[in-house]
Amino acid sequence: MRDADSKIEEVLDAVVGGATDRTCPPLLARAVRYAVFPGGARLRPKLCLAVAAAHGDDDPRLSAAAAAAIELLHCASLVHDDLPCFDNANERRGKPSVHVAFGDQIAVLSGDALIVLAFESLGQAASECLAPARLSSLLSITGRAVGMPFGISAGQAWECEPTVDVSKYHRAKTGSLFVAATCAGAAAAGGDAEPWTLLGERIGEAYQVADDIRDATSDAETLGKPVGQDQIHGRPSAVQESGISGAVNRLRGLVQEGVDSIPACPGGDLLKLLILEEAKRFLPKEMARRAAA
Amino acid sequence: MRDADSKIEEVLDAVVGGATDRTCPPLLARAVRYAVFPGGARLRPKLCLAVAAAHGDDDPRLSAAAAAAIELLHCASLVHDDLPCFDNANERRGKPSVHVAFGDQIAVLSGDALIVLAFESLGQAASECLAPARLSSLLSITGRAVGMPFGISAGQAWECEPTVDVSKYHRAKTGSLFVAATCAGAAAAGGDAEPWTLLGERIGEAYQVADDIRDATSDAETLGKPVGQDQIHGRPSAVQESGISGAVNRLRGLVQEGVDSIPACPGGDLLKLLILEEAKRFLPKEMARRAAA
Repeated sequence: MRDADSKIEEVLDAVVGGATDRTCPPLLARAVRYAVFPGGARLRPKLCLAVAAAHGDDDPRLSAAAAAAIELLHCASLVHDDLPCFDNANERRGKPSVHVAFGDQIAVLSGDALIVLAFESLGQAASECLAPARLSSLLSITGRAVGMPFGISAGQAWECEPTVDVSKYHRAKTGSLFVAATCAGAAAAGGDAEPWTLLGERIGEAYQVADDIRDATSDAETLGKPVGQDQIHGRPSAVQESGISGAVNRLRGLVQEGVDSIPACPGGDLLKLLILEEAKRFLPKEMARRAAA
Repeated sequence: MRDADSKIEEVLDAVVGGATDRTCPPLLARAVRYAVFPGGARLRPKLCLAVAAAHGDDDPRLSAAAAAAIELLHCASLVHDDLPCFDNANERRGKPSVHVAFGDQIAVLSGDALIVLAFESLGQAASECLAPARLSSLLSITGRAVGMPFGISAGQAWECEPTVDVSKYHRAKTGSLFVAATCAGAAAAGGDAEPWTLLGERIGEAYQVADDIRDATSDAETLGKPVGQDQIHGRPSAVQESGISGAVNRLRGLVQEGVDSIPACPGGDLLKLLILEEAKRFLPKEMARRAAA
């Protein structure tokens, strides 16, 4: 996926660079770049591009914009999640979180501005693309993934309720953006989005399980953020439910179910291989090595 | 403008109602409705619909969606502006502000969800409209108005900088969404947006001057929010610069300049009358009466 990696950084650079030029308030500009670069694993945009490629990717500029928009929305959610009124997390990706480095005001504004930029940049790409009509379906897909009632904002809001359906919570808070990644990849390439929902759901669940495993077994230095948070915040976790090895088995099963759900398309077989390969990185290296042995 | 009033409430009801149904986390759903209803003067969506009407409004569903999106973005900015880390305002529109009524977490999420909903609902309307290609220009117009480097997020971020160009600050924080209102009205009706920029800018400036006057002369009960905030926060104000009567004259001059800038279009004359009428409401009733005497 080296090509996809550099394509993603390139389009994020262009989109974020354009919005944070010399005309932008300097602190906001720095904070937004800090929130996006250097990135994490860029799993969601990679998944989006991989599905677009499997579908023929006849409009690479639009699929790249969709992938970037999804990553920007992800970064926005991390910035707001880390705020003192939510997780009050001091570290993210191995450095001080945005509100620690730039203050709460700039952190709130960076998240807002990243959400806006995601949608604005989709519109920009669509204005120059082959089939501008694809834009409305990309908007629906990405909006649904981060808004109400099923997206990230809703997922986070379930944390404020006295009772929560845990799987509904995870679907909204984590799964939704993976579903957006697979569906937007198909839609950007002119395909039907709906058959790609299940792949996104299963990869999202697998990622959530991997996150639980990392939170329970890793150290803060490896992870670049505080560990043991599920236990501290009393959050449900796959590790609590079924132990480490149970959780690892569940993760593998979910990835396999996702891969099995891939609809027939020209690049389907290659996509399966890519996903199985990428999913190995969900776990800490040492654990993946042990699991593979 | 009675028709426009009810049309705006109707479309806001439909858009917000759909997103905050029984599947949405209940607190978030209540907070989002609380942030949008009952509204303020709905100036921006009225301006948007008035410009669309002057342009023939051949796709009323799209112009209504654009007007609603602009109002949702406005409501989102108020919710985040009132947060403790910004203005720490306890009241808005005569009732406790969202973070006071629902807590900081839900206030941050409500703002996020309203931003997302604005763009998502535009996409939804465009998917069923006459000319889906209008969507990308509506996205650019609204995104520019609320994002970086020139929109509301940037405007708010100028407050975090050691030095600020005051007119740049006001253009971003207040003017930008009025510009979006006029330009989106034209774009939704298939017109050229750019010639409508000046009208939006001047109405936005006039509104800012009116806001300064109200802040300096009104009482909290009439205004539904704390007064004297410009002085408390050391913010520049037209009243400080040129006194009350100077500010009132400036307001009138700006509205007239705006009206004079209206490009030739079928409904231009009616639009001028409407804007002059609406602008009278920028000031507290008693003051408007005295000014008219």
